[in-house]
Amino acid sequence: MRTRLVVTRAGLLQHGDGVATTAAGVPAPANRLGAVGVRRHKHWGWGFEDQQLPSGDAHALASTLATRLGIKTWDLEAPVALEAVHLAPPRLAPPAALAEISTSDEHARASHALGKSYTDVVRGFRGRFEHPPDFVARPRGESEIERLLEWCASERVAAIPFGGGTSVVGGVTPIVGAGYNGAISIDLGALDRVLEVDPVSRSARIQAGASGPTLERQLGEQGLTLRHFPQSFEFSTLGGWIATRAAGHFATVWTHMEDFLESVRALTPAGVWASRRLPGSGAGVSPDRMLAGSEGTLGVITEAWVRVQPRPQHRHSAAVRFASFLLGAECVREIAQAGLHPSNCRLLDAGEARLTSAGDGSHAVLVLGFESTDHPVDASIERALEICAGHGGEVTPRGGQAAAGADAVTSWREAFLGAPYLRDTLVAMGVLSETFETAITWERFPAFHERVNAAATQALSEVCGEGGHVFCRFTHVYPDGPAPYFTVLAPARRGEEVEQWQAVKRAVSDAIEAEGGTITHHHAVGRDHRPWYDLQRPEPFAAALRGAKGAVDPAGVMNPGVLFDPAS
Amino acid sequence: MRTRLVVTRAGLLQHGDGVATTAAGVPAPANRLGAVGVRRHKHWGWGFEDQQLPSGDAHALASTLATRLGIKTWDLEAPVALEAVHLAPPRLAPPAALAEISTSDEHARASHALGKSYTDVVRGFRGRFEHPPDFVARPRGESEIERLLEWCASERVAAIPFGGGTSVVGGVTPIVGAGYNGAISIDLGALDRVLEVDPVSRSARIQAGASGPTLERQLGEQGLTLRHFPQSFEFSTLGGWIATRAAGHFATVWTHMEDFLESVRALTPAGVWASRRLPGSGAGVSPDRMLAGSEGTLGVITEAWVRVQPRPQHRHSAAVRFASFLLGAECVREIAQAGLHPSNCRLLDAGEARLTSAGDGSHAVLVLGFESTDHPVDASIERALEICAGHGGEVTPRGGQAAAGADAVTSWREAFLGAPYLRDTLVAMGVLSETFETAITWERFPAFHERVNAAATQALSEVCGEGGHVFCRFTHVYPDGPAPYFTVLAPARRGEEVEQWQAVKRAVSDAIEAEGGTITHHHAVGRDHRPWYDLQRPEPFAAALRGAKGAVDPAGVMNPGVLFDPAS
Repeated sequence: MRTRLVVTRAGLLQHGDGVATTAAGVPAPANRLGAVGVRRHKHWGWGFEDQQLPSGDAHALASTLATRLGIKTWDLEAPVALEAVHLAPPRLAPPAALAEISTSDEHARASHALGKSYTDVVRGFRGRFEHPPDFVARPRGESEIERLLEWCASERVAAIPFGGGTSVVGGVTPIVGAGYNGAISIDLGALDRVLEVDPVSRSARIQAGASGPTLERQLGEQGLTLRHFPQSFEFSTLGGWIATRAAGHFATVWTHMEDFLESVRALTPAGVWASRRLPGSGAGVSPDRMLAGSEGTLGVITEAWVRVQPRPQHRHSAAVRFASFLLGAECVREIAQAGLHPSNCRLLDAGEARLTSAGDGSHAVLVLGFESTDHPVDASIERALEICAGHGGEVTPRGGQAAAGADAVTSWREAFLGAPYLRDTLVAMGVLSETFETAITWERFPAFHERVNAAATQALSEVCGEGGHVFCRFTHVYPDGPAPYFTVLAPARRGEEVEQWQAVKRAVSDAIEAEGGTITHHHAVGRDHRPWYDLQRPEPFAAALRGAKGAVDPAGVMNPGVLFDPAS
Repeated sequence: MRTRLVVTRAGLLQHGDGVATTAAGVPAPANRLGAVGVRRHKHWGWGFEDQQLPSGDAHALASTLATRLGIKTWDLEAPVALEAVHLAPPRLAPPAALAEISTSDEHARASHALGKSYTDVVRGFRGRFEHPPDFVARPRGESEIERLLEWCASERVAAIPFGGGTSVVGGVTPIVGAGYNGAISIDLGALDRVLEVDPVSRSARIQAGASGPTLERQLGEQGLTLRHFPQSFEFSTLGGWIATRAAGHFATVWTHMEDFLESVRALTPAGVWASRRLPGSGAGVSPDRMLAGSEGTLGVITEAWVRVQPRPQHRHSAAVRFASFLLGAECVREIAQAGLHPSNCRLLDAGEARLTSAGDGSHAVLVLGFESTDHPVDASIERALEICAGHGGEVTPRGGQAAAGADAVTSWREAFLGAPYLRDTLVAMGVLSETFETAITWERFPAFHERVNAAATQALSEVCGEGGHVFCRFTHVYPDGPAPYFTVLAPARRGEEVEQWQAVKRAVSDAIEAEGGTITHHHAVGRDHRPWYDLQRPEPFAAALRGAKGAVDPAGVMNPGVLFDPAS
């Protein structure tokens, strides 16, 4: 399975939306070993050290892709080896009581210094770890987290909760401002167990540090699955998903992680914030909905009860061609408003379809899927395809239910899974490769798409010259609008990639803001989206949220710089 | 239609859950006149003054009901006429600038002094308006609301947002503590328009003061409906629904009002809190989810964009008998976990079924309904009925799709609509009649039901003697648990009803709390649920919420006593 992950047949997509499942219904598990130290993460990119570049296959694939897109590439550059990296010395040492769970070794500090955005990977690749944590703590349980938070508050040290480290918005980067004596990463990796399963209510109590494959493996032993499959699935964690309102597998209805929450438990500097386990409630403002999206600024999420289910027994998928993205969008609108609730409803524009070998570049492709644990879904997909036909959609030939083989659905799925690996290679070849995502209501979508696309294209052209590409797909759809997801590929100038992307990002984020979209549908705000997030959120709400934070984190040590300005 | 509302064929159900629709899919509209002063609300109970008791039909119906249940009743008592009511004189007068929209006449003050819980109705019936607002303001727009809030903050006067006044938890009762110079009700009734309809995105911008019939009539002109039908539908308002996280029509998936929100606009003492109109977002903590359930403590909700839809074209319903409530519950669990998404899935225990003429008292009844704007729902209901059969359920005879006539589904619907009217009569006859509701996960449900039921039964017996009844139904169901709704009927002692119910309420609320349920699934917290809500919510969350409130309402004038202790 790993080979398929690393070397996809197709192309590239970026972090973010879900669906990447095998025919059996669960994403291909990575060959990740649970034990600490047995297998180390790359200090700069996606995956493990023994998946390090150069990989002939990945290189060939990336070259083919770049050639096909007409993007000029460079010779493969090698990443700066960890041994050659210079990290600023730690400003502080862990207290004796916490020394056993803390480390300031180079690999730990480097691999916790950045997330996994394009600029993060570029920085890591070049050995530019400018804001490493002073040390990394790996608590084994809640009491150690409590002691860490107490120490941070008393010493005025920033505490950065760290799950899989897959943030693409600077959410785990220890840039905390001058008002702190240092910053530490609190790595939740040791809290990775499924603690309880309730098969009657179909829910499970799971520790926050459990990654996608880790929790799915444990749930699978009981015949259950969470079915939350963001693109970062292999490494990202339950706690991270809740803290960032991650969106996953389901394209409709239950799109975000918080839609699966029964209760959440977090440790704040002011004590334990644990909600009651309830299927639904209307008792005041929802405590769970205040932790969801708090991005580590209120406390450390330690566990949650989440809704799980058996693997779906009935599945059906299809790919449908449309003459244009906008024609496809009109069709998706009707499907989203029909109450059919497809699990997959991802519309790819022609370029994105070509990129992922789901199409030949002449048409948009809708990847449509239905699934059920209980009953056949044939009637649902038939009705959806009828709607497609009414909009001029043509079903592309493929086998029947859950058929394997070289078809658009499979191509798209494989590309989706392999994308983060492929991007490391693209960085080494000098290709700028990043994504951004948003949501907008249907009636504004055509103009929104045109303007954001134009802003991205123009910025790319100004910044990168000829050969840039902007692609778009829908990752999730609602009755009242889609969540468009843009992929950007362009030739980069070596050594200037960060500034190049930042210029493009400013342009596209300004366009999204001006056109009324959200600065993020499921990537979170982190540090990178702050300027636009600040414009988007209502000021009294910002004040309320600051008030809430002040009450539970009076010293302001929880992930400063995220959502709010750090305390000064 | 009104006759049908006032005089049901059956019995009684209480405030709270939804579904009360005609065959056409929209609840029977009340004969409510929009113009102020043309038709006045009863000052003490449900409906309008010209629906005042005694009504022969209602009396006959209530008598039959009481006889059937073996509840001893008294002669019909007459409510204390408004002219005979003594209200404490207002402690303050509106400022000149707001005099035009303010009134301190007796009817206005009395009809804004209480909500619509059983004890509220009893108090009103007896003329016990102990905490009337000093005056009632009826702003015509946001600028007048702003001025009211400014004045309240500067004069330290409690500001109580008032929608339909249908709170059953003391949410609009001006009991605000000694720290205030007075209290006013801000009646949103003049903000009752549908301001914009976006047929492409299927959403509408609606003012917060629009009642159910008022907004449905305006949406109906454009062929659309919100389909939020709580039992209070006739009078309750959009703003109230959002502020209290009201639950309505849909028994699954989109159960609460906040599930239909695209954006919310509220005026806080710190300024305008208006979120961006988005189909979905993951940008930090959701601002809309912080207003939802805020119960007037953060500001006055003035309008919202909500998801609307055409009327369903395809509907199918059925009633299924089960030998016991618990056998029915097992079946409902399977339906809820099957992903069939029924719009109605209300399980009535044998007593409740008899009460509403949906059964003869020998069996539990499941009222099941499916609807779609787009496609036939036959397959869905067939599968649901197959599941029912597997659990020993027997489909009760009835006509085909949308058939009218005397069957269990129709009986239940009519009883649901008529209940609040009927209760006024029961109060006049000396019958204690109240409800409480909660939610719990499936695996705890059987023991939970047994213990809560036992606590209610024992308390009723101690407080009211022989002849008390406790019934239960599910109003909403989730994959991980139901929302059980209890109805209590018992002989009351005249003049002691309030204390009697309070004793019963303490017992059942203690049991719910001890067994891990929520103190409310959709009735909100208000003032009445505070002791148990305070036990339920995590303390750091309470601190966070207080911090949030402090930031937007520094003077603490917004609905003090609700959710939090009033500022002292």
